[in-house]
Amino acid sequence: MNRRVKMDLFEACEKRYSYRGAYQDKPVPQEDLERIVSAGLAAPSGCNAQTTTFVIVSDPGLLVEMRKIHSMKAVQDAKAIIACVTAKKPVPVYEDQNFEAEDCAAAIENMLLAISALGYASVWIQGHLSKEGRAEKINALLGIPAERTVRVILPVGVPAGEGERRPKKPFGARAWFNRHG
Amino acid sequence: MNRRVKMDLFEACEKRYSYRGAYQDKPVPQEDLERIVSAGLAAPSGCNAQTTTFVIVSDPGLLVEMRKIHSMKAVQDAKAIIACVTAKKPVPVYEDQNFEAEDCAAAIENMLLAISALGYASVWIQGHLSKEGRAEKINALLGIPAERTVRVILPVGVPAGEGERRPKKPFGARAWFNRHG
Repeated sequence: MNRRVKMDLFEACEKRYSYRGAYQDKPVPQEDLERIVSAGLAAPSGCNAQTTTFVIVSDPGLLVEMRKIHSMKAVQDAKAIIACVTAKKPVPVYEDQNFEAEDCAAAIENMLLAISALGYASVWIQGHLSKEGRAEKINALLGIPAERTVRVILPVGVPAGEGERRPKKPFGARAWFNRHG
Repeated sequence: MNRRVKMDLFEACEKRYSYRGAYQDKPVPQEDLERIVSAGLAAPSGCNAQTTTFVIVSDPGLLVEMRKIHSMKAVQDAKAIIACVTAKKPVPVYEDQNFEAEDCAAAIENMLLAISALGYASVWIQGHLSKEGRAEKINALLGIPAERTVRVILPVGVPAGEGERRPKKPFGARAWFNRHG
């Protein structure tokens, strides 16, 4: 159904927000998940190293196990969860620098926009994974290699309603022409 | 001219690539720069902290000074350069974690997509800024406060031609359903 949906880039940027609420009991077709993750794969990465890998959790049994790991409503209701995976000890790609945080974030942003464009909603879950052994549990559940770890999860589903949109600072509070404000 | 341009989100993701070449001698209207940076401001940030700030360099005299700092052709030709600024010592926003790298990267990705959608091209310049005192020079030039620093610059212009597109790994090499490959 969503295959031919088109959404203007600027509209997608405005529409996207962090949704933590309930999802409708509607499936997310595999084709849509492939489109979403393909958008992530198209994101830039430092020195084109393409360091982030992805596990798309759509198996009902695995989703039951994922629900035991995080209590957020969106995780409980998700029809799919995209796990974004990076190295535990990133290898430098330019001098002594690595860009795995940036690589992963850019891919996530593409995926969040794609999720919005296709009529779904999601939220970037990262900090919470370091608590209560969540990352370790997900790593074991999804067969993530020992040298890598889940960094972020994105639940995906059709939102049951409009969630809270947190306020954004206006342009002039964060952006200026020619001199920092 | 570009005000009413629309581009599908997925098309923008596919069209965007890192452009390091020459730009045409065509201006980038202030209105377009505001749209691009507004897309960046709409990106998510950890705990909604909105940590990245932006200086849009469009003043011809300042662009002359920017050219002295980085020799890349895109910087030499740019009609505008967006400087993305973060804290030198980020403040934790969740437990002991901060997400300034992620916040900045997500905003950049929105801006890179917006740049592509409006018919411009850009490249994410980050690692190079730590060399040859470039970040310090840009911080001084743009009046960036002492506790903050330019993290990334994005040149903006109408590309003179098609640049090299670096190859991307296929879906099955980076993404899998239900179990890490």
